[in-house]
Amino acid sequence: MPVVTSPAAIAALFTAIVGPDHALSGDAIAEDYGHDEALTARMVRPAAVVRPASTDEVAAILRAADQHRIPVTARGAGTGLSGACIPRADGIVVSFERMNRVLEIDEANCVAVVEPGVRLDQLDGELGTRGLVYPVYPGEYSASLGGNVSTNAGGMRAVKYGVTRHNVLGVEAVLASGAVIRCGGKLIKTSSGYDLTQLVIGSEGTLALVTQAILRLHPRPAHGATVLAPFATLDEVTRAVPRIVASGLAPLMLEYIDILTMTAMINQLGLKLGVPDEIRAKAMAYLVVALENAHAERLEEDVQAVGELLAELGALDIYVLSPSAGGELIAAREKAFWVSKAAGADDVIDVVVPRAAIHAFVQRVGAIAREHETWIAGCGHAGDGNVHMAIFQKDSERRSRILRQLFEAGIALGGAISGEHGVGKEKKKHFLALEDPTKVELMRRIKAAFDPHGILNPGTIFD
Amino acid sequence: MPVVTSPAAIAALFTAIVGPDHALSGDAIAEDYGHDEALTARMVRPAAVVRPASTDEVAAILRAADQHRIPVTARGAGTGLSGACIPRADGIVVSFERMNRVLEIDEANCVAVVEPGVRLDQLDGELGTRGLVYPVYPGEYSASLGGNVSTNAGGMRAVKYGVTRHNVLGVEAVLASGAVIRCGGKLIKTSSGYDLTQLVIGSEGTLALVTQAILRLHPRPAHGATVLAPFATLDEVTRAVPRIVASGLAPLMLEYIDILTMTAMINQLGLKLGVPDEIRAKAMAYLVVALENAHAERLEEDVQAVGELLAELGALDIYVLSPSAGGELIAAREKAFWVSKAAGADDVIDVVVPRAAIHAFVQRVGAIAREHETWIAGCGHAGDGNVHMAIFQKDSERRSRILRQLFEAGIALGGAISGEHGVGKEKKKHFLALEDPTKVELMRRIKAAFDPHGILNPGTIFD
Repeated sequence: MPVVTSPAAIAALFTAIVGPDHALSGDAIAEDYGHDEALTARMVRPAAVVRPASTDEVAAILRAADQHRIPVTARGAGTGLSGACIPRADGIVVSFERMNRVLEIDEANCVAVVEPGVRLDQLDGELGTRGLVYPVYPGEYSASLGGNVSTNAGGMRAVKYGVTRHNVLGVEAVLASGAVIRCGGKLIKTSSGYDLTQLVIGSEGTLALVTQAILRLHPRPAHGATVLAPFATLDEVTRAVPRIVASGLAPLMLEYIDILTMTAMINQLGLKLGVPDEIRAKAMAYLVVALENAHAERLEEDVQAVGELLAELGALDIYVLSPSAGGELIAAREKAFWVSKAAGADDVIDVVVPRAAIHAFVQRVGAIAREHETWIAGCGHAGDGNVHMAIFQKDSERRSRILRQLFEAGIALGGAISGEHGVGKEKKKHFLALEDPTKVELMRRIKAAFDPHGILNPGTIFD
Repeated sequence: MPVVTSPAAIAALFTAIVGPDHALSGDAIAEDYGHDEALTARMVRPAAVVRPASTDEVAAILRAADQHRIPVTARGAGTGLSGACIPRADGIVVSFERMNRVLEIDEANCVAVVEPGVRLDQLDGELGTRGLVYPVYPGEYSASLGGNVSTNAGGMRAVKYGVTRHNVLGVEAVLASGAVIRCGGKLIKTSSGYDLTQLVIGSEGTLALVTQAILRLHPRPAHGATVLAPFATLDEVTRAVPRIVASGLAPLMLEYIDILTMTAMINQLGLKLGVPDEIRAKAMAYLVVALENAHAERLEEDVQAVGELLAELGALDIYVLSPSAGGELIAAREKAFWVSKAAGADDVIDVVVPRAAIHAFVQRVGAIAREHETWIAGCGHAGDGNVHMAIFQKDSERRSRILRQLFEAGIALGGAISGEHGVGKEKKKHFLALEDPTKVELMRRIKAAFDPHGILNPGTIFD
């Protein structure tokens, strides 16, 4: 069979599968399909955008793409931060926007079965009324579950509930050959061959296209509280984190926000936290501790205990926020990426280090910032050691050197380049330079085992 | 390089690496090295047993084995139940008994770093005094962590804490080539390339030899209680399980024990539970609910709530066991395998099904037992849907047909052949017959990506 290369021929190939309304080409392709939210991403117009409505259509699309060696980039909501869903100009985008059904909420087994285009807020709306929660909350609620699986998304609640990897029990996925496999199930354990579910999670669309995910649900505790503690130094905040985790109080969230980020959040979002000016003037960093419980009185006791612990750890003051102020603070923290973007950040990264090493890492970040006369503002999932940083440096070569140094610093402390954003296309250069070549070679061989012709998201994670 | 085949030549090859005291051959090989605890396992004497003391020695062993195409079977404590550590007669056993150090207990990061030969009771002894716990408790405390990683061991606490997969954050592993890789870290999240840690976990020694594991620790709650509830029918027990999980009471253990198993436990172990004879006469199955809490008064409230829920669900009576009786019951449940073995069981299996399907599965098991006039006694991790069954049927062909039917029944309900024991060599035939050939082929290609010459535990999971 001849290899199809012209955009028109490629579009025609997939029109036959999904119909003319759902195989877009040329000017019919909206600009959004060409990038994600990575600040450094450059839009690439694919040869076609294909919007399947079913697993069978996805299978047919991949069979055709594999035969004709057409690169395939899967796309959920496009909210990724590492460029993993930037397509190839000679390839197609498979957009899951039409596969957006919550197929089942199985209360007896505490699981939901969803298509990849389901958005987090959509799922949460359906679960809330049933007293259940899917606890993985990356900042962006318009993100899709398919995208979450692809990047192994995390978010603020990971300190209590783990990340996507810990809450996806199974997937239906289509291999590059078009074969459909079902892995895992409504099961919290299985030891029956290699765990393909776990391998697909976090593989950024390079191993298979996920067409269904089985999600673990949890009872939704009725009561929640948010405690805000300003500290005189970021050092004290980062030192406090392991102590709070070790306390057994099991916070739902444990976030730190540095003074640059907090100021930007207050100015841009008009956040009112009730922190008096004299305290704000002294505070160089904030710790946010969210707690939840099924029992109001237990929550109250735990809030009291957290307050006492924070005081002991040197907090300048402790504020138990009203539900509305707490909600606003959490919402503002979730918007930290947008705040950074609006403030002119040139890149954002999310190095992860062992929780007790945040302190050393943040000190090293400060030294790198000074060396390069660059603003590096941060906040992060402190309980997970996952530090989100916005880098303000227009010069791209210098910025690349800064990133390299930040990644090296994280790895030297036993960490990794990315806690939850993924490698994508934007961090690939650093990943390949810093990761053990033996592991990279092994990953390439695993990639080839799944996708012998290399059609799935080429250029992501590796070249 | 010539291929080495004689046992003496093989032993000589490895003597050069570990010294004469730790490369055993011929009669120096104790019978134990030739099998695990699978009831159907037949002892196989390997050409040599090699006992490395370090990762470097493991790497040298694998380099030599790979060059000479010598099969390598890793061995921890040999407590597996699926024959995964039965060696090949033309291969070697790499026994990790000398690599048994707890290398680090890092309280700030709540992790332990262990060598594969560390035993669960040894680790627990070191953690208990620090108020920490590694929560994966498969029944056998003499099991090694390396073996636990290899089979993705589970146990009674999985309903609260998950299984090995959820509590191992990273591994150091040696590939077949002798290359040493380090994956994951003291990190609860990372999205930086494929998750090799998760792939190695549960791979039963077929992908790499684990030489270190980084374990996630948890605060050890000070207070615990055990509630025992007899029910008039097994049906009622299996129906009660999803309700208890959905209650949000987060039991530490949620086990069911059928009348055959409970009777055997009482008779063989002299268990005294304080259940009056008139209740015992009516009880056809028992539910065990263990709870734990950092606060005594919260535990008491939760015990009360569990009791009320159990009464509502039809329990004949509810017994809050004394700490000693509770401990004895849990210990007896952990010994269920040995009780079955002593009672003359011919095989044990551990099918896993969705929690709410235990009811249907157990009914199907009853029908299969009647069809084959075979005793099938059971108990299990009801909260996980993981049903352990002892099969009393001497005729091996008939037993094989019964197993096939039991596995088919589990799979038809959305389950899998094994929740925690693994496929090993003993269930391979059924796994290959029942698993999707596309997935098996994918697993074979992954295997080849790790181990191109197929030296690692050949004959386990697949041929």
